[in-house]
Amino acid sequence: MAEADTRRRTRGSGGGAARRAERTAVSVETARYIERNIPNFEILNEEALEIIETNAETILEEIGVAFVNNPAALERWREAGADVMGERVRIPRGLARKLCSTAPSRIIQHARNPERAVEIGGRSLVLAPVYGPPFVHDAMGGRRYATMADFEKFVKLGYMSKWLHHSGGTVCEPTDIPVNKRHLDMLMAHMTLSDKPFMGSVTEPSRAQDSVEMCEILFGKEFVQTNTVMTSLININSPMTFDDVMMGALEVYAQNNQACIVSPFIVGGAMAPVSVMGTLTQVLAEVMAGIAYSQLVRPGAPVIFGAFVTSIDMNSGAPTFGTPEASQITYGAGQLARRMNLPYRSAGSFTGSKLPDAQAAYETANSLNMGLLSGVNFMLHACGWLEGGLVASFEKFVMDADQLGALHKMAQGIATDEDAQAMGAIAEVGPGGHYLGCAHTQANFKSAFWRSEVFDFKPYETWSEEGARDTMALATERVQRLIDTYQQPALDPGIHEALTEYVSKKKASMPDAFM
Amino acid sequence: MAEADTRRRTRGSGGGAARRAERTAVSVETARYIERNIPNFEILNEEALEIIETNAETILEEIGVAFVNNPAALERWREAGADVMGERVRIPRGLARKLCSTAPSRIIQHARNPERAVEIGGRSLVLAPVYGPPFVHDAMGGRRYATMADFEKFVKLGYMSKWLHHSGGTVCEPTDIPVNKRHLDMLMAHMTLSDKPFMGSVTEPSRAQDSVEMCEILFGKEFVQTNTVMTSLININSPMTFDDVMMGALEVYAQNNQACIVSPFIVGGAMAPVSVMGTLTQVLAEVMAGIAYSQLVRPGAPVIFGAFVTSIDMNSGAPTFGTPEASQITYGAGQLARRMNLPYRSAGSFTGSKLPDAQAAYETANSLNMGLLSGVNFMLHACGWLEGGLVASFEKFVMDADQLGALHKMAQGIATDEDAQAMGAIAEVGPGGHYLGCAHTQANFKSAFWRSEVFDFKPYETWSEEGARDTMALATERVQRLIDTYQQPALDPGIHEALTEYVSKKKASMPDAFM
Repeated sequence: MAEADTRRRTRGSGGGAARRAERTAVSVETARYIERNIPNFEILNEEALEIIETNAETILEEIGVAFVNNPAALERWREAGADVMGERVRIPRGLARKLCSTAPSRIIQHARNPERAVEIGGRSLVLAPVYGPPFVHDAMGGRRYATMADFEKFVKLGYMSKWLHHSGGTVCEPTDIPVNKRHLDMLMAHMTLSDKPFMGSVTEPSRAQDSVEMCEILFGKEFVQTNTVMTSLININSPMTFDDVMMGALEVYAQNNQACIVSPFIVGGAMAPVSVMGTLTQVLAEVMAGIAYSQLVRPGAPVIFGAFVTSIDMNSGAPTFGTPEASQITYGAGQLARRMNLPYRSAGSFTGSKLPDAQAAYETANSLNMGLLSGVNFMLHACGWLEGGLVASFEKFVMDADQLGALHKMAQGIATDEDAQAMGAIAEVGPGGHYLGCAHTQANFKSAFWRSEVFDFKPYETWSEEGARDTMALATERVQRLIDTYQQPALDPGIHEALTEYVSKKKASMPDAFM
Repeated sequence: MAEADTRRRTRGSGGGAARRAERTAVSVETARYIERNIPNFEILNEEALEIIETNAETILEEIGVAFVNNPAALERWREAGADVMGERVRIPRGLARKLCSTAPSRIIQHARNPERAVEIGGRSLVLAPVYGPPFVHDAMGGRRYATMADFEKFVKLGYMSKWLHHSGGTVCEPTDIPVNKRHLDMLMAHMTLSDKPFMGSVTEPSRAQDSVEMCEILFGKEFVQTNTVMTSLININSPMTFDDVMMGALEVYAQNNQACIVSPFIVGGAMAPVSVMGTLTQVLAEVMAGIAYSQLVRPGAPVIFGAFVTSIDMNSGAPTFGTPEASQITYGAGQLARRMNLPYRSAGSFTGSKLPDAQAAYETANSLNMGLLSGVNFMLHACGWLEGGLVASFEKFVMDADQLGALHKMAQGIATDEDAQAMGAIAEVGPGGHYLGCAHTQANFKSAFWRSEVFDFKPYETWSEEGARDTMALATERVQRLIDTYQQPALDPGIHEALTEYVSKKKASMPDAFM
């Protein structure tokens, strides 16, 4: 991992006062995206991987996939050599994989602050917040429909979160804004309240086009056509169905050189077989078809191998999170993505819990750890997810975002140089001694251990006197502290004005629609 | 993983009533210990491992280790070829590793119920509960000193916990029993309230001897001398100090063919260098010295390579848990243990939190996942640990024990047979279909997904109507349900009487001591 950007940290003159100053200083530093210096966890052997790859080709060739309401897509497939009957596209063995080979293996997504550009692919891991919840939750207000004010608050929290590299997309659904105009306000918030990279709209092809046009104002038209400035989420309607809305958005983005995550959305046992092997096979077939299609639209278009996978509680039908089956699929899909030389999106702060309680934390930690070790390059939903994605939680956002710091440290791997070997310290201290005061400890203690900025490590008595607060209470306090110290990043007034004008004109051009 | 023992499960005749009966049936089933069918996570490369091994030999040769108040140990070392000056033992390069080579690579620890024997070593993972806390905590009673009644309640919970293979040792300190007699009551509880394997006393060599004698009553004298029936915890006083109490207990156990975990107890930055590499080097040197010593006492004595490692909050000096540095050390130590062909003990349900809240669950999940992937063979503290080990929590015991089920499923690996490939199901369902009703799902859904018995997956509205309970409240209910349905496993009345008599005589033979 590269060092965090510490330019804006208050530097004291040393000693206790300086440490206190550091602890209370406003922090708008952001860590560089993770570059892993640890291996990936390879759960499948070569034989299993080959079975999956062979079977996925069989699915494409014999069962095929459906491109719905999309004659242009069917025409593209026909021209490429697929067997098209009605809306069913059967893809001869090997064709999809061959088409996928023009997709780049790494994507640089730019941000308006050039230092916050991210690389997606290779050994990188880029962390982005929760996406899509119609509800929000916090300790004060409970669970309620999300509004634009909530959306802006989440964008601010994301900007203030050191371990979050990306501002995300629909961090919550601003349900008080007409559906056909939401994307404009959401993009405006990401562009003006943060300087981290962000996602574009996918709910209509026209909204994807609006997203491109707003980026042209923010970055300049030529820059957008030659660089990736948005990563957007294209869900596959599993099993094996590609609808016209999502494909329409993908077409707009591919044509404009913008990145798409092509992502099966799978609740195991419902949208895919109950078995891990069967699900992996279907995921691979779906991703190959989707990415092949993106390359038919524009060879070389930047795309990401996506996999959103949960298991299901067979008693109630509810999706379940942080489960071992989901982990196995995520590990396996990572191997499949690497064999295609494509960036990989999966994992997140997943939980089915209704509260940011112990269940939420167990399930989330299971998912986050698995995401790091499975080689994920882009982790959407890395913080703030609650209740199966129905809810964006303010407290859980800062709890999860704090844990992302642990992933950074873990990914650094283990330094093996002479200083790290510490043989001098071991000799200095000797049997029965104590390391706290030794020179090696004094020289290294500041950077030696990752430290949570949310959790409590105080002795029981102190903690008790301070109100015996649980993690939820500590997180409520942290949310408020981050919001109180938020400082909007500067933006060229001319660009701000042009964006405002674009949004006003667009809004005026159509009546409100709430469907 | 082997299948859970389901002999005692109520079997219904199918349909909803049968499923309800299954859900409410008394369950005293215990899963077989985990046999991993997944790889270990290898964080260190060959070069780093060789540096550590070379440096550890340098520590032993040049700095040496201290065997305190133990002239017999010094004499054993002198005879073996070490350089002994005062209490400092310097071990020539290669000697410790050579002595360790007589230790067995796998240990079968027997239980009085033969089906509950466990194998420690190879690809196994045996799970045992928290060890050592002087306090207990539950929702009703808060935090308080532990008593013998609490101890017995924990042993019952352990017996009723399906995913726990081992009854453990000092699940909490029964502070209402004199210190010099506690071990008798604790062993009696493990022997009579459970039929799972357990641990012996290490607080005095004489108490280790009592433990052996009680096992001779339970298992028969000859059986004990030729089989391992206890695994006991021998902590090294890091850095590099072996005190006479712990070594005295180890001597008793080694002489009687009973297993010892030889375990550095390390808070990084205090008892070992602040660096991961330095800590691993010291851990290896300490374990090699301790295990070599066990083999000097009795070649072939069963021993386990232990590593208890936490990091430290350098602001407050408090130990911290579930941190990336501890994970890195645990992964690395696993590699070192495997290169010595020794069973490995590490990880646990670690947390510094004062409550079983989100902090506790994040930290615990980080540790449990790491424990599985680092190749741990014996995981002490696998459930119930709270507040840095000062507290045994009833609610956290059942929360953690539930998560251990996820480890079992994860460790099974991924089935790759034709049924698991599910190509028939994928063809049957086709694009746009639904898997819930298909034949493959119906045939496999019961075993397809691991299911928590603590967490809530209900829709928000149902959950809300039922009282909007958090994980703590759900766990309180589960503790009560397990205690209410507890059934004591049968024990030969003659053995029970002989054990009772032994304990009475021992207690009568000495005055109470509370120090």
